[in-house]
Amino acid sequence: MGLSSLYLVNPRSFPDKEAETRAAGAWDILNDARVCTSLDEALSGTTLAAAITARPRDLSPEVFDARQGALELIDRARESSVALIFGTEMSGLTAMEVSRCQIVVHIPANPDYSSLNLASAVQVMAYELRMALPKLESLPVTVTVAAEFDEIELLQDHLERVALRCGFLKPGEPKRFMQRMRRLFARARLEKEEVKIFRGILSALEKRIRPH
Amino acid sequence: MGLSSLYLVNPRSFPDKEAETRAAGAWDILNDARVCTSLDEALSGTTLAAAITARPRDLSPEVFDARQGALELIDRARESSVALIFGTEMSGLTAMEVSRCQIVVHIPANPDYSSLNLASAVQVMAYELRMALPKLESLPVTVTVAAEFDEIELLQDHLERVALRCGFLKPGEPKRFMQRMRRLFARARLEKEEVKIFRGILSALEKRIRPH
Repeated sequence: MGLSSLYLVNPRSFPDKEAETRAAGAWDILNDARVCTSLDEALSGTTLAAAITARPRDLSPEVFDARQGALELIDRARESSVALIFGTEMSGLTAMEVSRCQIVVHIPANPDYSSLNLASAVQVMAYELRMALPKLESLPVTVTVAAEFDEIELLQDHLERVALRCGFLKPGEPKRFMQRMRRLFARARLEKEEVKIFRGILSALEKRIRPH
Repeated sequence: MGLSSLYLVNPRSFPDKEAETRAAGAWDILNDARVCTSLDEALSGTTLAAAITARPRDLSPEVFDARQGALELIDRARESSVALIFGTEMSGLTAMEVSRCQIVVHIPANPDYSSLNLASAVQVMAYELRMALPKLESLPVTVTVAAEFDEIELLQDHLERVALRCGFLKPGEPKRFMQRMRRLFARARLEKEEVKIFRGILSALEKRIRPH
């Protein structure tokens, strides 16, 4: 479908004979695949990551269907790096993995049998990305600069520190608050400038909070 | 994807152990598959058959892309039987087989690598048929409650107070910061619960900030 960049997070076996056989000629993609030891490593530098899952969960990021999701991704890809995240064949994505993504993409299917093979899910998304290509050429480019994954992670850490320091969060308490903030930041598609402002106000607060 | 009717024309082996394994639970479709000795037998009673092929030929029937083709098929299926015709994994459809169909459907792909696996082609077409159905099924409904205008106004005021108190904002300075926050909150489509959390953390901060 024209995609060329493949990241593998902790593959059980790589390089792998069966993968080579199944690639059926697309060895360039397999040869250039990058192996990462964590999802965060793979997502570093991206501004929009879509978790492809059949089971959107409570407190999950904003959910799009495959077609709308492809449009969002292609739109963003004109100015920065985006990623599609697929889980394993057997168990899909964990809630933790989904929480690292800014949007969730759901592929419509028969509700009685809604879990696609990994290969099928990849095929549908790759196809939708290709179909989304020409339509967007005429849309005006927005001039904002999206914040990158790493910048938002640092913002999350900073916010947690301040929330603990002022006593809003108690150490060791469940992290539901942070999960909610993560979801909100994802939905908001934060800009670089906005992250800078938040960091600025958090720094100003940190200096003036009386220790709890 | 919700399709249920499978016809096999001269299968090399049927019933087949490997097919059962690969069906991954969709045995109803496999069990009910009808075996025919010719394509014409399989097409008997249909009014619109689409040949799915990567290589539209000279003198082929009218060519649609996958999306347009699915719309044609769904439209016709409201009143009579339609069919999608797939070739073998190794050699696809013959010119003779294509000639039995009323339309040709082409799945857009990377021109340098345009031949899809049979399973991939079936997946894309089944998906497009589902998407072409009049919106039978919408996305899983999330149960969040959007914040109202007044709640966001109060949040804005609260944020401004805290930003002034900690010295991040100077009184009388242009309100560019508040404007940015307003824009961000609008984009984020804040939920009631999120506004409550923000107000909570702002209150906790307010109590602990040393006056500037």
